[in-house]
Amino acid sequence: MTRMMKVDAGFEPIASALAAQLDQVTVIFERQLASDMSAVNKLCMHVEQYRGKMLRPTLVLLSGFAAAPAPAQEVRSQRSEVSQASLSPHDLRPLTSDLLTEKHRIVAAVVEMIHMATLVHDDVLDEAAVRRRGRTVNDLWGNEMAVILGDYLISNAFHLCSTIGDPAINLTLGDVTNTLCEGELVQLHHRDDYSIDEALYLEIVRRKTASLIGECCRLGAMLSGAPERISKAMKNFGIALGIAFQIQDDLLDLIGDQGVVGKSLGKDLDKGKLTLPVIYQLADSEPADRGEALRLIMERDAASLRLLLIESGAVARTAATAKGFVSQAKSELAAAPAGPARDYLGVLAESVASRTW
Amino acid sequence: MTRMMKVDAGFEPIASALAAQLDQVTVIFERQLASDMSAVNKLCMHVEQYRGKMLRPTLVLLSGFAAAPAPAQEVRSQRSEVSQASLSPHDLRPLTSDLLTEKHRIVAAVVEMIHMATLVHDDVLDEAAVRRRGRTVNDLWGNEMAVILGDYLISNAFHLCSTIGDPAINLTLGDVTNTLCEGELVQLHHRDDYSIDEALYLEIVRRKTASLIGECCRLGAMLSGAPERISKAMKNFGIALGIAFQIQDDLLDLIGDQGVVGKSLGKDLDKGKLTLPVIYQLADSEPADRGEALRLIMERDAASLRLLLIESGAVARTAATAKGFVSQAKSELAAAPAGPARDYLGVLAESVASRTW
Repeated sequence: MTRMMKVDAGFEPIASALAAQLDQVTVIFERQLASDMSAVNKLCMHVEQYRGKMLRPTLVLLSGFAAAPAPAQEVRSQRSEVSQASLSPHDLRPLTSDLLTEKHRIVAAVVEMIHMATLVHDDVLDEAAVRRRGRTVNDLWGNEMAVILGDYLISNAFHLCSTIGDPAINLTLGDVTNTLCEGELVQLHHRDDYSIDEALYLEIVRRKTASLIGECCRLGAMLSGAPERISKAMKNFGIALGIAFQIQDDLLDLIGDQGVVGKSLGKDLDKGKLTLPVIYQLADSEPADRGEALRLIMERDAASLRLLLIESGAVARTAATAKGFVSQAKSELAAAPAGPARDYLGVLAESVASRTW
Repeated sequence: MTRMMKVDAGFEPIASALAAQLDQVTVIFERQLASDMSAVNKLCMHVEQYRGKMLRPTLVLLSGFAAAPAPAQEVRSQRSEVSQASLSPHDLRPLTSDLLTEKHRIVAAVVEMIHMATLVHDDVLDEAAVRRRGRTVNDLWGNEMAVILGDYLISNAFHLCSTIGDPAINLTLGDVTNTLCEGELVQLHHRDDYSIDEALYLEIVRRKTASLIGECCRLGAMLSGAPERISKAMKNFGIALGIAFQIQDDLLDLIGDQGVVGKSLGKDLDKGKLTLPVIYQLADSEPADRGEALRLIMERDAASLRLLLIESGAVARTAATAKGFVSQAKSELAAAPAGPARDYLGVLAESVASRTW
């Protein structure tokens, strides 16, 4: 069965509805990548092991559940005066799988495929050897194979998206992947730039990570027929959650335990990528201490830098910033109809900033 | 003004109509890549120098011209009994730009962008330093930048394609890029495989190069309202032309003059990529000579291999195979209405296999 993010107990009905849906998403994902060339299939089977907690598909489906209004005739028969914009939680049907459409599941598979493509190409960029506790494509078969395999995943994501037959969804996802690449390009442009500040860091993170996660939530809600106001709030929820997620990811790269996280760590420092704890460290320290921090960065001395960041409070300040984005995300949820799916999204947001993996 | 492939004289009206259209394609191309991040714009401006003869956009437009029937009312007023399937050259309007639609130009920009993305990623794969007489992105800014820039181009190609609002075109191009990547993946899989035969080589070439060129011709005709029979013939024309083009490209990589070709040569040998002249050499030679050829391949001795391939006749046999595909391409043109655009396509096909650049 599909692995899922661990959340607090008390969400059994929705967790089991989600698990059933995620299994169907996996079937769509695997069917899309099946090729008549056996060499291609072998590679894709390896990449499927990269699939982790399926955060992005989970968010599409959960936003779909959270925003799904009751079917029109039920609403009409119960309270004929109700408008879609003022649906109450009582208008929600029980959380059964048929609340979601095939379009939700296809979009969920598409966003996972886009994410997987970025993982494969990120590993080339980072020269990473380990991903989800397994060897990376670049480490096993070289950078060339990893570059083209990433391209194959991107191409298949767009192809799968096109099967929905809705040009607006294609346009939206094309826009998001443009934004995502811009974030990566700007980040690379600022490699070894020690003057990068919090605002630029957050702009990069918003583009390279949060834009896709925001669109997962918006599309999930939109495909459930949610009014514009709710879809927009769901998008804002996803963006804030995505920023918190990336801040935590960057924090773990500096202070995490590779055995727990399951991928190569310390890569940001190796690659001259300045992330929030380091930005805070440089901004907050006295001139003399700043020189010491810069020396550790330039010498790629991960162990000493880690200690310094913890002792100085830069790690704590970073964690607080992540929690701030979680709070912001949760406040956006108020726009969605109350119910177990909305509560589950709130718990998910909390878990993103407290995770150690 | 946009550079174009050089063809025989005598096509002034169509060449000038094409040049005007290609200028508009360039505008669409550049507008699509404009970003609000200046670092991104700088990179894209560099990549635009890669634009060469614009073969693929030219084929979209030219196929559009060749297959465009006269406007319905003109046909009706002149010969009311004519059916679309039996249009004669006299039904063609003069080759003015308004024969083509904005969709032709958008598709032309999209296929060029897809092609440009493959160039940027190919240069990473080949570790090439020179492209269109300029330095490659990977050589200037590293592999990481080239990987993400290629992704940005792919993403923008799909986004631009989605602006047409026709899911069938998105689906078709997604299918083509899937096929293209499969061709590249299978080629990489067979690196240093000395048993690769002509059939496998042609299958790889059909996928990685000819599939996109075939679709350029089909889409150009289809967007001009050509009947299925003609669109299909145009696709077959493009596939055969694409195979001839790639065979010639591979031949030039072995025996071309870098100053004339304008990109890093000898890369196939360096990367253990066996192309048609070498496949013929290994297949046709006596056991002792075969051993000698294998030694030169394994030692990456380009100069000696080049001499051997010329002397043995492997180069001539390869050139003959390319010419065979050109003939096949030209025979497909018979399905299209006679006229200057069709003739021009024939001349273009000839030039592909005889080019030295």
